[in-house]
Amino acid sequence: MSVVDRIANGSGEFLLFALTPPRSTSAGDRAQEIADATLARLRPLHLDGLVLYDIADEAARNPAERPFPFMPTLDPAAFLADNLASWSAPAIVYRAVGKYSSAELRTWFAAQDRARVMTVLVGAASRDSRPKTSLADALALSREANPDLLVGGVAIPERHRRRDDEHVRLLAKQAAGTRFFVTQVVYDINAAKDLVSDYRYASAERGTPAAPIVFTFSVCGSMRTLEFLRWLGVDVPRWIENDLRHAADTLEASYRLALTTATDLIAYCRRLGVPFGINVESVSIRRVEIEMAVRLAQQVGEQLRR
Amino acid sequence: MSVVDRIANGSGEFLLFALTPPRSTSAGDRAQEIADATLARLRPLHLDGLVLYDIADEAARNPAERPFPFMPTLDPAAFLADNLASWSAPAIVYRAVGKYSSAELRTWFAAQDRARVMTVLVGAASRDSRPKTSLADALALSREANPDLLVGGVAIPERHRRRDDEHVRLLAKQAAGTRFFVTQVVYDINAAKDLVSDYRYASAERGTPAAPIVFTFSVCGSMRTLEFLRWLGVDVPRWIENDLRHAADTLEASYRLALTTATDLIAYCRRLGVPFGINVESVSIRRVEIEMAVRLAQQVGEQLRR
Repeated sequence: MSVVDRIANGSGEFLLFALTPPRSTSAGDRAQEIADATLARLRPLHLDGLVLYDIADEAARNPAERPFPFMPTLDPAAFLADNLASWSAPAIVYRAVGKYSSAELRTWFAAQDRARVMTVLVGAASRDSRPKTSLADALALSREANPDLLVGGVAIPERHRRRDDEHVRLLAKQAAGTRFFVTQVVYDINAAKDLVSDYRYASAERGTPAAPIVFTFSVCGSMRTLEFLRWLGVDVPRWIENDLRHAADTLEASYRLALTTATDLIAYCRRLGVPFGINVESVSIRRVEIEMAVRLAQQVGEQLRR
Repeated sequence: MSVVDRIANGSGEFLLFALTPPRSTSAGDRAQEIADATLARLRPLHLDGLVLYDIADEAARNPAERPFPFMPTLDPAAFLADNLASWSAPAIVYRAVGKYSSAELRTWFAAQDRARVMTVLVGAASRDSRPKTSLADALALSREANPDLLVGGVAIPERHRRRDDEHVRLLAKQAAGTRFFVTQVVYDINAAKDLVSDYRYASAERGTPAAPIVFTFSVCGSMRTLEFLRWLGVDVPRWIENDLRHAADTLEASYRLALTTATDLIAYCRRLGVPFGINVESVSIRRVEIEMAVRLAQQVGEQLRR
């Protein structure tokens, strides 16, 4: 069954891999080379779908210095259309909606084939920034321009830990038409379990079926990558930081930790009866980290097929 | 090897069961009946030792209403001497030091046989209370009166979560003569792992061997017991609360959660090379909860003998 159908009927149990499009400076032949190499690497995974991030300069969100400098990347929609033509499964294209005018978004929504493309709409990074389009407007536009298109939103377990109301936000987004959710990278399993648990019981209370939640996992090959994860807003428990810092092989240690966490979360979601997907990404562009992320996806995929 | 030797040489891997002495009103024959019934129940567990709590009225610590009313209990030292004569393994007797004068503590320390008794010294429940003896003074007294006596302290992962310095407190207590630590009931595994990890690496940095940390586990048969755990200062993650609230059998669900957490923590401590013990208690005095705590101790014991 296609991941589009799985999300539409709320059955979950799918595997995604997330890509950040190449830098804008790589447009053209170089972007095509990167796309071809990436697809060759991912083919053995039998993924249910790709996730394509839309990178915004989040300096407004976080005043701390960014551990890796911000580099503008290709528009994920353009990268999909121009360079990933040989990808036959569906793709979930992120839209940082504040970057686009209503007209741009409307045109893009209208042009998408529901069977091949889904989208995740992400609001502005900060209250101070001046978005061209708000998240609520973008969601309404998508319904108007292409009511069949499956639209997802972000779910942030870290915010739940601090405010205890992320499940209420998810329910509100769902009432406004959002059909699935994707988390940022999960390192704190208790935060993820708290969110999915509160969401599950609140959904049951309202009599609405739970929408699939896609949990994102990644590996971390260096303290610099860890610092970047924290900069992005990921809560990394102290013991995990210590484990990674003192490991003989940080990357291998992070792979084992991520696999253990994913395994635990899969069992937990199945037990609760909440539909879920797993998304794997490489936060770093180092080749060894990408290859370890592929290994993680492969191992998680075996669990999903059980 | 006796648990006294295991603590003295820092080798860990022991199993304890904690008891709250009977109410003061049960002194005499009733206390003896309770002691005999308890020892009969615990005999099949092949415990390495007993823990005997010294209950103080902690109203000063927590202004919220106590879910179960405070009942004065027998002095654990008296309960051990008077009613647990048939217990042949060592016992760890708690001393809420603020309740006793220096003279009382000195006399008690001096009278203890190191091979049979260890103690855990607990400071006053609140800064507002007026302790008869301070924790630092009690520790100094124990060294003076009976230098061979093994003295432990409390370790609070919840405090580490909030202040990030509990490992520094443990190192300071250790420098003052504390030979082992006992936690309160563990429900938040990340808090426990954070503490043991920070403690392990800080010990290595100072070149001091890590002292055994005893992790306490319990079961929870009702939302009232859960409320009491929270009142005592135990952090119970939301998802665990939800699981217990919605379980067909709360007690059985809590048993499974505690066993999973203990199993995870045992593997973690072994991997880190930190000596540890496991302590099981029944927070409630309901018979079914006590029996489930015994079952938990039995299962954990099998893991420790592996």
